[in-house]
Amino acid sequence: ICDLRSDTLTRPDAGMMQAIQAAELGDDVYGEDPQVNRLEAVLAERLGKDAALFLPTGTMSNLAGLLAHCRRGEEIILGAEYHVYAYEAAGASVLGGVSLCPVPVRADGALDPGAVAGAVKADDSHLAVSRLLSLENTHNGLAVPLADMAATADAGRGAGLAVHLDGARFFNATVALGCAETELAGLMDTISVCLSKGLGAPAGSVLAGPGDLIARARRWRKMLGGGMRQAGVLAAAGLYALDRNVARLAEDHARAGELAGELRSLGAGEVSQATNMVFFTPGDGRNDALRAHLAARGAVIGGGSSGAIRMVLHKDVDDGALDCAVQGLKSFYG
Amino acid sequence: ICDLRSDTLTRPDAGMMQAIQAAELGDDVYGEDPQVNRLEAVLAERLGKDAALFLPTGTMSNLAGLLAHCRRGEEIILGAEYHVYAYEAAGASVLGGVSLCPVPVRADGALDPGAVAGAVKADDSHLAVSRLLSLENTHNGLAVPLADMAATADAGRGAGLAVHLDGARFFNATVALGCAETELAGLMDTISVCLSKGLGAPAGSVLAGPGDLIARARRWRKMLGGGMRQAGVLAAAGLYALDRNVARLAEDHARAGELAGELRSLGAGEVSQATNMVFFTPGDGRNDALRAHLAARGAVIGGGSSGAIRMVLHKDVDDGALDCAVQGLKSFYG
Amino acid sequence: ICDLRSDTLTRPDAGMMQAIQAAELGDDVYGEDPQVNRLEAVLAERLGKDAALFLPTGTMSNLAGLLAHCRRGEEIILGAEYHVYAYEAAGASVLGGVSLCPVPVRADGALDPGAVAGAVKADDSHLAVSRLLSLENTHNGLAVPLADMAATADAGRGAGLAVHLDGARFFNATVALGCAETELAGLMDTISVCLSKGLGAPAGSVLAGPGDLIARARRWRKMLGGGMRQAGVLAAAGLYALDRNVARLAEDHARAGELAGELRSLGAGEVSQATNMVFFTPGDGRNDALRAHLAARGAVIGGGSSGAIRMVLHKDVDDGALDCAVQGLKSFYG
Amino acid sequence: ICDLRSDTLTRPDAGMMQAIQAAELGDDVYGEDPQVNRLEAVLAERLGKDAALFLPTGTMSNLAGLLAHCRRGEEIILGAEYHVYAYEAAGASVLGGVSLCPVPVRADGALDPGAVAGAVKADDSHLAVSRLLSLENTHNGLAVPLADMAATADAGRGAGLAVHLDGARFFNATVALGCAETELAGLMDTISVCLSKGLGAPAGSVLAGPGDLIARARRWRKMLGGGMRQAGVLAAAGLYALDRNVARLAEDHARAGELAGELRSLGAGEVSQATNMVFFTPGDGRNDALRAHLAARGAVIGGGSSGAIRMVLHKDVDDGALDCAVQGLKSFYG
Ligand SMILES: [Ca+2]
Ligand SMILES: [Ca+2]
Ligand SMILES: [Ca+2]
Ligand SMILES: [Ca+2]
Ligand SMILES: [Ca+2]
Ligand SMILES: [Ca+2]
Repeated sequence: ICDLRSDTLTRPDAGMMQAIQAAELGDDVYGEDPQVNRLEAVLAERLGKDAALFLPTGTMSNLAGLLAHCRRGEEIILGAEYHVYAYEAAGASVLGGVSLCPVPVRADGALDPGAVAGAVKADDSHLAVSRLLSLENTHNGLAVPLADMAATADAGRGAGLAVHLDGARFFNATVALGCAETELAGLMDTISVCLSKGLGAPAGSVLAGPGDLIARARRWRKMLGGGMRQAGVLAAAGLYALDRNVARLAEDHARAGELAGELRSLGAGEVSQATNMVFFTPGDGRNDALRAHLAARGAVIGGGSSGAIRMVLHKDVDDGALDCAVQGLKSFYG
Repeated sequence: ICDLRSDTLTRPDAGMMQAIQAAELGDDVYGEDPQVNRLEAVLAERLGKDAALFLPTGTMSNLAGLLAHCRRGEEIILGAEYHVYAYEAAGASVLGGVSLCPVPVRADGALDPGAVAGAVKADDSHLAVSRLLSLENTHNGLAVPLADMAATADAGRGAGLAVHLDGARFFNATVALGCAETELAGLMDTISVCLSKGLGAPAGSVLAGPGDLIARARRWRKMLGGGMRQAGVLAAAGLYALDRNVARLAEDHARAGELAGELRSLGAGEVSQATNMVFFTPGDGRNDALRAHLAARGAVIGGGSSGAIRMVLHKDVDDGALDCAVQGLKSFYG
Repeated sequence: ICDLRSDTLTRPDAGMMQAIQAAELGDDVYGEDPQVNRLEAVLAERLGKDAALFLPTGTMSNLAGLLAHCRRGEEIILGAEYHVYAYEAAGASVLGGVSLCPVPVRADGALDPGAVAGAVKADDSHLAVSRLLSLENTHNGLAVPLADMAATADAGRGAGLAVHLDGARFFNATVALGCAETELAGLMDTISVCLSKGLGAPAGSVLAGPGDLIARARRWRKMLGGGMRQAGVLAAAGLYALDRNVARLAEDHARAGELAGELRSLGAGEVSQATNMVFFTPGDGRNDALRAHLAARGAVIGGGSSGAIRMVLHKDVDDGALDCAVQGLKSFYG
Repeated sequence: ICDLRSDTLTRPDAGMMQAIQAAELGDDVYGEDPQVNRLEAVLAERLGKDAALFLPTGTMSNLAGLLAHCRRGEEIILGAEYHVYAYEAAGASVLGGVSLCPVPVRADGALDPGAVAGAVKADDSHLAVSRLLSLENTHNGLAVPLADMAATADAGRGAGLAVHLDGARFFNATVALGCAETELAGLMDTISVCLSKGLGAPAGSVLAGPGDLIARARRWRKMLGGGMRQAGVLAAAGLYALDRNVARLAEDHARAGELAGELRSLGAGEVSQATNMVFFTPGDGRNDALRAHLAARGAVIGGGSSGAIRMVLHKDVDDGALDCAVQGLKSFYG
């Protein structure tokens, strides 16, 4: 089977399951889980931050970070299509009384520095208090270059904002940009990274940043209900993933390029691709028929009845699986 | 003096002060203030709604209405430049856990019906639950025609939304449109109107709508701290204003037209005008110098050091006062 | 008529209405209302604080103060029967994400210092962060002595808490205790006082405290919808009340004592009295019959069908009015 | 080693790790994880409810349930020493704007039905809207009998409240009471149960209840950040625990009785015991010395420097481990 709906679908492989099996466990609420402690230490170091915190999901990793940055009544400036704004049900507003100020995302996935500066509010009781800039990399697969990230972060910092990175696919970005992890992370005050997407762990996310902020985020994790006990079951998988599955993200990017090439040569619609994501908009609008055709051949795609279809490459789609999808596309449009 | 910064600056005139003086008062938290009860009854009737509620400000009138419409985690779709989104410090988010989804405001002050329909969220746990459409009329002085209001409201209703109108300057709209108050109000589920702007009362706003919703809003008013005791001191002024100061808004609109005409004939910058508001962008960018020049001649304008200057006509700017401002403008640019 | 339900029922007298009439007004959102500015300055000085803020109600005065003291997730320790906990619909929790930790109120109206210290939470992610102690004086009419207030406040401060006073009837307390206003206020970081109860103004409350905290409270006032425009209409009444109606609270206390004496001599039930409040629990449980009997004679009492009836003396109950109530009580029980 | 601090310390045994290893996994956000789906189905059936939801922790299980029951501004009545009030950092208030009304917990762990009925608020804008009664069983190890649970639940229902059970140790209760799981669950609208305590799973909790409420809780789970991907890694452990580790809780209860007996025969302080918990208050106040003495002999106890020490029996404390603790106690006090 070739499931292209999302890289969240990655399942632990045998080696990862072995790592889980072998893990010495403890109670992380007491701070005694060796796997969690090691995972937090490893990522704090790799990201060049004082401290790190393991959380069950990327949504909570972002949320605990945002609540640790912003008090009630303060504002986050962020991309209108970024996940924190568009796909986390406005949790920071709903649960935390933080207001969200969306600015348009550029075609390259970055925020315009001028737009960020322009969104920062004056000190006026009619207005929220701007506190945080929340960025995203990769965004829709686009790896935003370091220079653009730096320019936007600088615009925020110049206006007195702290800067957070939703790095759900942080390692896709660093692999694609060919930069050191600390180069991208160093532009940020806090970074959340996901272990369950391209890295292949079953669940889990880590927030890294300054010690005092991470201590506050730890309290928010507890209140939100993210303080798991023998969380090392998940953290062991995360450690394994960080060791084995980062460099191999380049394979996903290569296969995504290959799939995009095949789609373009079919001439059946618009195609764009970046890192591990391909966006294909069928010119004939027969999305549902295409989906059914592929499903019958063992390839699964998502998306609605019209518009762009997102296809995401990940470690559970190998060359054989990808070929199955490509053959299905060819037979549909051939 | 000619203070053009805002129509909130209107002061009670002698007749209004006499009405305050003569008012029989009671304790409105006990429901016993005759002026408040009469004001609520008058506006419920004039706006064609079951019930109405007096509140200290337009901000609270909108906020109590929004909280009565929306539960925690639900979403309001509204204009990105509307007051509820842009100038009420995101209170519904911060205090009420309601998310705010801004859509662009058209040049005519309306929201595009298609943009409203497009902003309504699918039923998906990643997304907020769309509940309410919040409109505004007038917007930046623009009286949005009934047909446009109806089209936008219909788009919202068709997607299952209730519809609220921030009618801080509702009567400027109805006077300018030449429509019945019930024609505009009839398109809405709830309407908030302000008594302290063009109508000239010292403070106060009224929310009108269905009985059960107004009962909920009354509870939110109490919790927010808007349950005043002998509120009839303010309500008496509001009743007087509704009797005497609605039709005369046409004078403000006429004077705004006159001021716009003078500005255009000066050729000193861009000018736009609608109802009681004039927006003037000095071509030479000498905003601060203009402000100082006018101030020395008894005319006060607001705005920053650059960009458009908003000039608002209201009942405390009579022909003589306006002439003072016009002469000041002429001598500056002459 | 003799309305004993509450001292909130006080209506402006002719002199106060004259003060309203004579008031020069401005727009308080611009900081330009002379009455509001003077009222804030007068109370800051009388209470010995850096700054003060006028708000429409005592509920908002407390709420804005609590939100200025406490961030989301922090906790207020307060009396289980105090108004902020028991009668403000948990607004600080609901709107502000502040948790409320009630401790029992002693028979003398104070909180036990040991109970306050014992309620302060350890630094543990399972627990809220204790931040503020909220006191009340008078409580159910009881004027808590300075020494008790000081002991409780010290217990809070010793545990790192700031201290707020809900002084809805602050002046009843200082008049009854015979202390300087600054003596009671000096024990507190912030104080809210009401103008609409015994002082006789139609509405309004003032929060006093440190300059930075009052600046934050001013923002919360705006967001909550308490930023009225020509609020001087109310502030002028408040200034008049502070000048004329403070010392006379002693008359209310004396009449309350007189009423309590009459009730005790009737031997018809339990009686307690402190400052301007009398609590009477009819021994025969015929509350409804008593209420009807008094109403027929022009005296109004509140309370439910059973339990204690609160009777509140205030400036609109003079000797003649009180006599009407006393005669009614005598004829009912005689 | 004999760690008596908490039953959260339980580690997966070899069989459970094998079940994890063998688990077929999917993405639970897509509803495709077979283990999670089976776990939810199993517990819905065992608890006699329409639907169930897997969550990462008991804190989130309670929180998502409370948010699904209560809207902003509504109130939960619950025991002042219950975990939801005392140890979850007031999350429902802080994050959800729900107010919490504590009532005293009886010595038997139940709430007095009269106290519950008395805490329900009248319909008055000064007061929160009472919505939910939240119970707990076991509480401090006490298994509250069905008749008491029923009486309290009836008192709540009679006043219009829904009833939730924090069943973090639900199975300790049913095993101790010797009742069917549906007998206890049947008294409740919703129940949360923990898999990570006595049952021995590494993490995870399940909320069961009516279908529409569970659907709302699922949305809150997503917003709170509890929507994990291949959550089957944890759910498989939970399924194994439900199969193998429920009946054996009786062993923990027996060992707790044995430990209590030994402590009583030492005559060294007050002892109480119920289900798997023993509370021991050293008469000599030498808590720290006792803790050090035991630690040197391989037994770990928690608690502070004074007061009661909680000792919790669980599956990782076998007879040999318990004996180690008992010998340590004997040598300390002998
Ligand atoms: Ca995965
Ligand atoms: Ca206003
Ligand atoms: Ca005005
Ligand atoms: Ca009054
Ligand atoms: Ca465990
Ligand atoms: Ca747990």
